[in-house]
Amino acid sequence: NYSALARSVKGLAGAPEWPALRAMLPPMDGLRVVDLGCGFGWFCRWASENGASEVTGIDLSENMLARARAQTADYAVTYLQADLEQLDLPQSAFDLAYSSLALHYVEDAGKLFRTVHRALAAGGRFVFSTEHPIFMAPASQEWIADASGRRTWPVNGYALEGPRTSGWLAKGVVKYHRTLGTTLNLLVAAGFVIDHVEEFSPTEAQVADNPALAEERERPMFLLVAVHR
Amino acid sequence: NYSALARSVKGLAGAPEWPALRAMLPPMDGLRVVDLGCGFGWFCRWASENGASEVTGIDLSENMLARARAQTADYAVTYLQADLEQLDLPQSAFDLAYSSLALHYVEDAGKLFRTVHRALAAGGRFVFSTEHPIFMAPASQEWIADASGRRTWPVNGYALEGPRTSGWLAKGVVKYHRTLGTTLNLLVAAGFVIDHVEEFSPTEAQVADNPALAEERERPMFLLVAVHR
Repeated sequence: NYSALARSVKGLAGAPEWPALRAMLPPMDGLRVVDLGCGFGWFCRWASENGASEVTGIDLSENMLARARAQTADYAVTYLQADLEQLDLPQSAFDLAYSSLALHYVEDAGKLFRTVHRALAAGGRFVFSTEHPIFMAPASQEWIADASGRRTWPVNGYALEGPRTSGWLAKGVVKYHRTLGTTLNLLVAAGFVIDHVEEFSPTEAQVADNPALAEERERPMFLLVAVHR
Repeated sequence: NYSALARSVKGLAGAPEWPALRAMLPPMDGLRVVDLGCGFGWFCRWASENGASEVTGIDLSENMLARARAQTADYAVTYLQADLEQLDLPQSAFDLAYSSLALHYVEDAGKLFRTVHRALAAGGRFVFSTEHPIFMAPASQEWIADASGRRTWPVNGYALEGPRTSGWLAKGVVKYHRTLGTTLNLLVAAGFVIDHVEEFSPTEAQVADNPALAEERERPMFLLVAVHR
């Protein structure tokens, strides 16, 4: 289950894409930060420790927020329960919006992007990770072998956007497949300027440390995006 | 061979992605246009017919340029032979740079993007198509069947950027695989603002007209991008 994942136990250090995502973040000093889908609050605490002036963590799960609050007693972090599909945020109230692996659960990404844009001050940044559409598109999300036996990801249905039901973590969890183009075009339509798009693959050092990560070079599992208003 | 392809015989009407690419173009009226990799000159003639004030077509192949010139006698189009790897263009000389399926032959895309940026007037646009990295990445570029028999594209080596040698059209032609993120980041680094990213898939009407196009929904073959300076 979610609690047993490396990223849930070890926090940011358990997420192989974190160094790449961190490199896309501005310095935290004095920033007003909102974390969309904060889970156990690892990023909220990191932002606070690194100088953010105010941090707001938002999640749908009261269970996760309860655990986040229990671990965050000594930090200037506020946790709020809200559904990202119906999110309401104050205008121009944040300098950084962050989201780690939550946006693929959101059906109406365009609406959320407009909400985030309005909630950011001029020059504010939005940095997020989401499941990569190459990973999410296929009917079967299992490695196969190509004709030569090489580890291969079976892409189909890439242009067929919409719900995907996977058995990962919990039966019947619905994610929403969008092409990479659609995600970027929705950001542009919301008023954002695209700064950086990274399709995560591990570094040499990461693969040396954890050889199982090598397969992430065959196809990207995570899409990392940085934009500003 | 190249001359026998639908897009070579019928021109723009033979290219299924043309309507999507055309929709990303500004009105041609009065524009100074440069076409990078103009081939037989179909787009150069279209731009001229649609009101462009000056059109420059650039290609590496003198054979293609000879045929382009022979078909373009009545148009205000200039053809120049040049290698896109070593391209030199006058500064602020164009309002639109266009390129159809040529950039995947260019090894140093960053250098070319900087050249194009410098060659555009303020507000000028760069609109191009290129082979999609999902299409180009795999060691084997052949459809396979997934466990259920569905048409499936065997993605591997996505993060491994660099040359790909395919047997398509001519043995030993080298293309250069870049992730989608790399292409976009090189455009941003060159100074461009990203306006639209489209991973081409056919419309319902196109599939009704040509059922063989349906497979393009399984994975994108073409990446279409519009940016401005």
